[in-house]
Amino acid sequence: MFAPLQNDSFLRACLRQATPHTPVWLMRQAGRYLAEYRATRAQAGSFMGLATNTDFATEVTLQPIDRYGLDAAILFSDILTVPDAMGLGLDFVAGEGPKFERHVRDEAAVAALAVPDMDKLRYVFDAVTSIRRALNGRVPLIGFSGSPWTLACYMVEGGSSSDYRAVKTLMYQRPDLMHRILAVNADAVAAYLNAQIEAGAQAVMVFDSWGGVLADGAFQSFSLDYTRRVLSQLHQTHAGQTIPSIVFTKGGGQWLADMQSLDCNALGVDWTVNLGQARALVGDSHALQGNLDPMALFAGPEQVAAEAVRVLEAFGTPHQGDGLGPTHIFNLGHGINQFTPPEHVQVLVDTVHNYSAQMRHV
Amino acid sequence: MFAPLQNDSFLRACLRQATPHTPVWLMRQAGRYLAEYRATRAQAGSFMGLATNTDFATEVTLQPIDRYGLDAAILFSDILTVPDAMGLGLDFVAGEGPKFERHVRDEAAVAALAVPDMDKLRYVFDAVTSIRRALNGRVPLIGFSGSPWTLACYMVEGGSSSDYRAVKTLMYQRPDLMHRILAVNADAVAAYLNAQIEAGAQAVMVFDSWGGVLADGAFQSFSLDYTRRVLSQLHQTHAGQTIPSIVFTKGGGQWLADMQSLDCNALGVDWTVNLGQARALVGDSHALQGNLDPMALFAGPEQVAAEAVRVLEAFGTPHQGDGLGPTHIFNLGHGINQFTPPEHVQVLVDTVHNYSAQMRHV
Repeated sequence: MFAPLQNDSFLRACLRQATPHTPVWLMRQAGRYLAEYRATRAQAGSFMGLATNTDFATEVTLQPIDRYGLDAAILFSDILTVPDAMGLGLDFVAGEGPKFERHVRDEAAVAALAVPDMDKLRYVFDAVTSIRRALNGRVPLIGFSGSPWTLACYMVEGGSSSDYRAVKTLMYQRPDLMHRILAVNADAVAAYLNAQIEAGAQAVMVFDSWGGVLADGAFQSFSLDYTRRVLSQLHQTHAGQTIPSIVFTKGGGQWLADMQSLDCNALGVDWTVNLGQARALVGDSHALQGNLDPMALFAGPEQVAAEAVRVLEAFGTPHQGDGLGPTHIFNLGHGINQFTPPEHVQVLVDTVHNYSAQMRHV
Repeated sequence: MFAPLQNDSFLRACLRQATPHTPVWLMRQAGRYLAEYRATRAQAGSFMGLATNTDFATEVTLQPIDRYGLDAAILFSDILTVPDAMGLGLDFVAGEGPKFERHVRDEAAVAALAVPDMDKLRYVFDAVTSIRRALNGRVPLIGFSGSPWTLACYMVEGGSSSDYRAVKTLMYQRPDLMHRILAVNADAVAAYLNAQIEAGAQAVMVFDSWGGVLADGAFQSFSLDYTRRVLSQLHQTHAGQTIPSIVFTKGGGQWLADMQSLDCNALGVDWTVNLGQARALVGDSHALQGNLDPMALFAGPEQVAAEAVRVLEAFGTPHQGDGLGPTHIFNLGHGINQFTPPEHVQVLVDTVHNYSAQMRHV
C-alpha cells in the first residue's frame, strides 16, 4: 500500500482536468547537471550500477523532487533495459555512450528475438516500488519505455548513430524483418510498462526519441503503428486509479494530426512546435506536454523566466472549471543538458507555477 | 560568353513552367560516393585543396553529370568559404570535420565582423565561370551559400555541434549580438551569391541546414528573416536570363507556411515532409524540391525505384501546358551519403525521368 497522493496536478492535467497551476517536470530531471546526482553516481561506479541498484535509483529519482517543487517524478532508468533483457549485451563505454555486444541485422538474429522474461527486468520494477514508497505521496511517479522504433534503432545500429544507416537500410531492404523486430518490441514494451504500473507507476510515457528521423509514410508504418500496438495493450487503470499515458516523438511536430489518432492521454512535443497551433489542432482530444528548448536554460535568469512565459502564453490559458478541456504539462522539448546551471531550473519551475496561476485569474 | 543551354528542365521547373519530365539533381552529387571523385581528391591532397583549385573543382562538378543524366550541376564548394573569408581561419581536421581557429562568441569578436572583400572568394567565382564553360550548355549550373543562421552556427560553435549549445546560449543571452552577426552574414551571403551569378551561376540555392534546430519563434526571427534579407538583395536576372532561387531548410517542414512568404522560386524540403500536403499548402506560389530519404539508396534497385515512384506520386502530376503552376524538382531530402552504391543513383535518375514522363501522359 502506498501513501495517498498530495499533489495530483500532473495526473489531472494528463487527464484534461483543470488544475490551479500548470504542472511542470523535466525530461532527464535526475541527471548529471545536479551535483548530488554526480555524487551518487560516483558511489555507484557506473551508469548501470546506478540504474540497477534500487537504493541508488530511488535516491537520484528523488533528488530533483527534493531540490525543486516539481509536480512529478520519473523513474531513473534507461531506455535500453528492454533490449538488454533480450540478451543483446548492453555496455556503456566511457565517452561513447551505450553499445550492444550483438547487433540485430540478419534473418537469424531477428528470428531469435522474443519478448524477454520480465523477471530479468525485476530491478526496474523493484526500483519503481521503492521510489513510489520513498515519494510518500508527494508527487506521482511516471514510468517509461523507449518506443518500439527507437529501441529498434539501437538494436540494429548497436549503439547511437548520426545517420541511422544500418536501421534504415534494413527497413528499406527488408521491411518484413523490420516489422518482425517492431512487433516483438511492441509486445515487450507493453509488458514492461504494465509491470511498471503493477509495481506502482502512476502514469507511463513512451519516448519515441528517433521517430523524427523517418520519412513521411515510414513514420506512420514503422513507428506510430507500433506505438499504437503498445498502447492497445496497456492497463488503463490499476488499483482503482486511471493510469495516464504520454507519447513523445522528438521531431514529430508535423505528424501531430497522425499522432492524434493514438489512444493515449497526452502528446509530448519538442521546441520546434508552436503550442498554440498544436492546441488548435488537437483540440480536446489530448493534453499537450512541452516544449521549452533545453538550451534556453543557459541564458540568464530573466531570460529563462521570459522564455518560460513565452511557452505558457503560446499554449494559452488552459481549460478551467469542471469537465474536460485543453490542458498543458510544462516540460522541456528534450532532456535537460548536463551543463545546465541548476539554479536556472529553480527559476523555471517558480515561473511556471506563479505565472500559470496568474493566467488563470485574469 | 557561354554556350546556349540544351536542357532547361531544371530552370523551367524552378520557375513553375511545364517540363516533359521531372528534373532531378542530388545534393552533394559530386562527392565521396564516386570513385572518380575520390581519385581527384587524392590528387588535390585535401578538401580545400579541391575546392580552391579551379581545375579540380571543375572536374569533380562535372563527374556526376558525365556519369548520370542529371538535369543540373551544382558548384563544388563548401558553405564555410564565407566565414573563412571573414578571417576565422577554416581548417578541415581529418575525422573531425571543419573547424575554425577563432570563435565568434563575445562582443569584441562580433564587433570585428564585416562583409568580407569578395576578392578573397575569387577562387569560387573563377570555379563558377570555369564550370559553366566546361558544361558547355549541357545543363544549368547552380550556385549556393549557407544561410546566415547556418553560417552563424559554425562561426559561434567553431565547428560542428551536436547540441548547438554555444550558438543558442549566445542567442538566448545576447540576442542583440546574434542579430548583428546575422545581419553581417546576410549581406555577405547576398554579395557572395550575386558574384556567383555574375560569374555564371544560372540559379542559386540557400542551404539553411541548421534552421531546424531552432525553436518555433526563434526560427522566424533568427533564420527566416535573414534568409529574407539575402533574397531581397539578389539579382533577379542576369544577362537577360531570370535567375531562380531555392531555399532549403532541413527540418523546416512544419514552417512551410512561414517559408511561403519568402521571395524565392522554389522551396526545398526534407524527407519528413509529405509532398502532397506541401503542394496543397504552397499551391501556386513556389516550386517544391525534394525529398527522398538518402538512406533509401541503400536498398536494392527495385526498392530504390519504388521509393522514387512514391516520392513522385506523393507530389502528383505536375502542372502541364502553358502558364505557371505546381512543379516538382526531384532531389534527396539531404546530401547523398558517402557510402551510397553509385549504381543505385543511376536507377534513381532513370526512374525519375521515365516514370515522371509517363505520369504526364496518363
